[in-house]
Amino acid sequence: MFITLEGPDGSGKTSQIKPLAEFLREQGYSVITTCEPGGTFISDQVRDVLKNLKNKSMHPRTEILLFCAARAQLVEEIIRPHLAQGEIVISDRYADSTLAYQGYGHGYDLDFLKNLLDFATGGLWPDLTLYLDIDVEEGLNRRRVGGGEWNRLDDYALSFHRRVRCGYLEMAQNNPTRWQILDACQSPHEVQDALRKAILKKLPGETLHT
Amino acid sequence: MFITLEGPDGSGKTSQIKPLAEFLREQGYSVITTCEPGGTFISDQVRDVLKNLKNKSMHPRTEILLFCAARAQLVEEIIRPHLAQGEIVISDRYADSTLAYQGYGHGYDLDFLKNLLDFATGGLWPDLTLYLDIDVEEGLNRRRVGGGEWNRLDDYALSFHRRVRCGYLEMAQNNPTRWQILDACQSPHEVQDALRKAILKKLPGETLHT
Repeated sequence: MFITLEGPDGSGKTSQIKPLAEFLREQGYSVITTCEPGGTFISDQVRDVLKNLKNKSMHPRTEILLFCAARAQLVEEIIRPHLAQGEIVISDRYADSTLAYQGYGHGYDLDFLKNLLDFATGGLWPDLTLYLDIDVEEGLNRRRVGGGEWNRLDDYALSFHRRVRCGYLEMAQNNPTRWQILDACQSPHEVQDALRKAILKKLPGETLHT
Repeated sequence: MFITLEGPDGSGKTSQIKPLAEFLREQGYSVITTCEPGGTFISDQVRDVLKNLKNKSMHPRTEILLFCAARAQLVEEIIRPHLAQGEIVISDRYADSTLAYQGYGHGYDLDFLKNLLDFATGGLWPDLTLYLDIDVEEGLNRRRVGGGEWNRLDDYALSFHRRVRCGYLEMAQNNPTRWQILDACQSPHEVQDALRKAILKKLPGETLHT
């Protein structure tokens, strides 16, 4: 089972993944977690290019292609082999981030991006995508006071972040069997609880929580 | 005017470019040359990932996306600005190499690759493509005895190199106003002469050689 977590920075995704994986392991599942971009020897080199602060002149199309290259390698080297062994793979961000940020946010053609992502991933899409939804201004506020690194993306106009959120909501709306929208304004404990319930509901053979 | 040189390694492309640029400068043109992959601060970092001998596990799709990322940056940072100033840009390999090697050679879908290349280059295709054609076995033989580095690609089966050559010939056949096929079995001096003639014929205002 391939699970992805999506949502803006500030929605709390990253801090939820570790306890989520630990909980599933306690239930007897084999779980690995990945975080984009990176996660393989080659993908990490591509991440270094993406994150290098000297690369300010990077064109948005270069950036999209580098994200896809890192993802292609992660899929082939890590995600597919672990899925093939029947493990659960949880990824902090995946292809839908490209659709939300570069497609809805920056206006790149969604159909082209979908084809590009199909190519990069060899057609691998998640079984379950958990979207941590948060009001745009509230999310940015959390970033400001949260002590995390305020990055180039955070600085985009509010309207950009609104388009990204609308994009996520539209994708969730269009494919409710894959997507689950969770309220990221709840306490971290409540969010963790909601994530666990959403996953257990999807796991084959699990009846306790359905 | 944007000119590209295409053809297999061993066809003599790389050694022809420098004297070609010098000749055009003597004729009063501003000329810059580029060589793929690389050519910008960012593209060079991507080339390092592509050439790193430790990256043997690189998936072919990762490779295609990295070539396209390096090219996207080269187009925006170097090729377009110089063309906008009315200069001649000559590139040693460009998008057609991806079509020939990954499309015709490895069988990736040509229509998808064309869309991908349109995206990466922002739709910039050459005004003139000079294809140095050489018999497949003769080309590989030159590589073997030429003292250059025998690389991973040279080691592919003869049938792969035949498909690449057929691809180049088909592309040239389909678009004769852009493509010129030159016989790379001639002496280097004769090849240089043929390259100069093909370019002068295309240059606006040039009547001496037409």
